[in-house]
Amino acid sequence: MNLVTLCSGGLDSVTLAHLLHSQGHMQELLFIDYGQRHITEYHYAYKCAADLGLHISDVEIRGQIFSSALTDFDVAVPSGEYTPETLSTLVVPNRNAIFANLAAALAVSRGYDGIALAVHGGDHEVYPDCRPSFIASLRRFLEVSTGISLEVSTPFVHRSKAQIVEIGLGLNVPFEHTWSCYKGGDKHCGVCPTCRERIAAFEGYEDPTEYER
Amino acid sequence: MNLVTLCSGGLDSVTLAHLLHSQGHMQELLFIDYGQRHITEYHYAYKCAADLGLHISDVEIRGQIFSSALTDFDVAVPSGEYTPETLSTLVVPNRNAIFANLAAALAVSRGYDGIALAVHGGDHEVYPDCRPSFIASLRRFLEVSTGISLEVSTPFVHRSKAQIVEIGLGLNVPFEHTWSCYKGGDKHCGVCPTCRERIAAFEGYEDPTEYER
Repeated sequence: MNLVTLCSGGLDSVTLAHLLHSQGHMQELLFIDYGQRHITEYHYAYKCAADLGLHISDVEIRGQIFSSALTDFDVAVPSGEYTPETLSTLVVPNRNAIFANLAAALAVSRGYDGIALAVHGGDHEVYPDCRPSFIASLRRFLEVSTGISLEVSTPFVHRSKAQIVEIGLGLNVPFEHTWSCYKGGDKHCGVCPTCRERIAAFEGYEDPTEYER
Repeated sequence: MNLVTLCSGGLDSVTLAHLLHSQGHMQELLFIDYGQRHITEYHYAYKCAADLGLHISDVEIRGQIFSSALTDFDVAVPSGEYTPETLSTLVVPNRNAIFANLAAALAVSRGYDGIALAVHGGDHEVYPDCRPSFIASLRRFLEVSTGISLEVSTPFVHRSKAQIVEIGLGLNVPFEHTWSCYKGGDKHCGVCPTCRERIAAFEGYEDPTEYER
C-alpha cells in the first residue's frame, strides 16, 4: 500500500515508519509543525526519512488556536510523572483529528491508499483522539469527507510504549535517532513526563538515549 | 451560544455570521489562510468582524498539501460555468474537514459550545465535505475526538446560494463587504465559476458587486 505516515520524530512514529517499511508498504512521511516549543522533533523526523530513504513533506500550522504547555511559552512544561494535573496542560485539543485530516488531504492529493498513525495504548486514558473508538470514527468520517475509503493504519493502537520499543528493537530501529523530550535542548532532560515515560518503556532493554539527569 | 464561525469573507459565511448575530449568539470568527492565491478574502473576513464588532482569529496552513487551482499558481483558474472538468481543478481535498477540526480545537480551547459552518445546498454535488451526511458524520466524529458534544451549526446546509442572498438582504448584510472571485484583483472578474455563481444568486435582486466584465 501507499500510505502517508504522520511522523513527529518520536519513538512511536519512527518505529511505525520502520514497521510499515519492513512490511513492504510505500510511504511518504508527513511532519506537522504546529508551533511546538522547539524544532528538535523536525530534525528527527527528517533523520527517519533519510534512514529509510523516504520522501518527507511538512505542513506548518500557525495561529493561537492551540493552547497548551507544548506550544505556549507562558505555560511551564511540568516535571515528574504524568498526573491529571500535568496532563491537562499538555493536551492540545483535537490535535490528532487535525493531523489525521491533513494526512488524508495529502493522501487524496497524491492518490495514495491511506494514512498511518502511531497512536498507542498508553495514551487512551488521557487523549480522546488516541482511543480505538477515535480510530473507528475517523475511518468512517474520512470516507464521508473525502468520498474515498481510505485505509487508516494504526498497528500500535493496542500496544504499550514498552511493546513499541520491543517491536523497534526487533526491526533495528535506531532509537538514538528519535526524540521524546518536551523541553528540547541537546539532550533529553530526563525529568519531564515524556522523558520518564521513555525511560520506563526501555526498562529491561538498553536505552541508547543520553539524558541530562 | 458561544460559537466559532468559520469565515472566509465570502457571501455565504458573512451572511452566516450576520444571521447568528441576529439570533443573539456570541461568536468568534476564524479565518483560515491555506495558501489561497490571493489575500483579498482575508480583508473581507476582517471587514465582517469589524461590521459586527466580533473578535476574529486566524490560522495559517503552509505546505504543499493541497493541490488545486485555488492554491497552485501553475494550475489556471478556469473561466465559465462550473463543469465536472473545471470543478476537479477547484476541489481542495478534505478542506472543510480540516477547517472544521481547527475550528473545533479553538472552540474547545476557549470553552465555547461549538462551531458554525456556511456549507450550503449548492455545493453538495461537487464537494463530499459539504453534504448533510458530512455534517452528521462531523458531529459524531468531534464528539469522539474531543470528548465533548460540540454544537455544529449549519443553517444553510439545505439552502441554495440564492436563498442565502435572500436571507442576507433581510438582515441588511453589506454584500459589498463580501468577496467571491477566485482570481483576486480589485474587482470581481465576473467570469470565473464562482463569480458566475454569485451573479446568478443575485438574479432578481440588486447586486452591489462591481464586476470587471
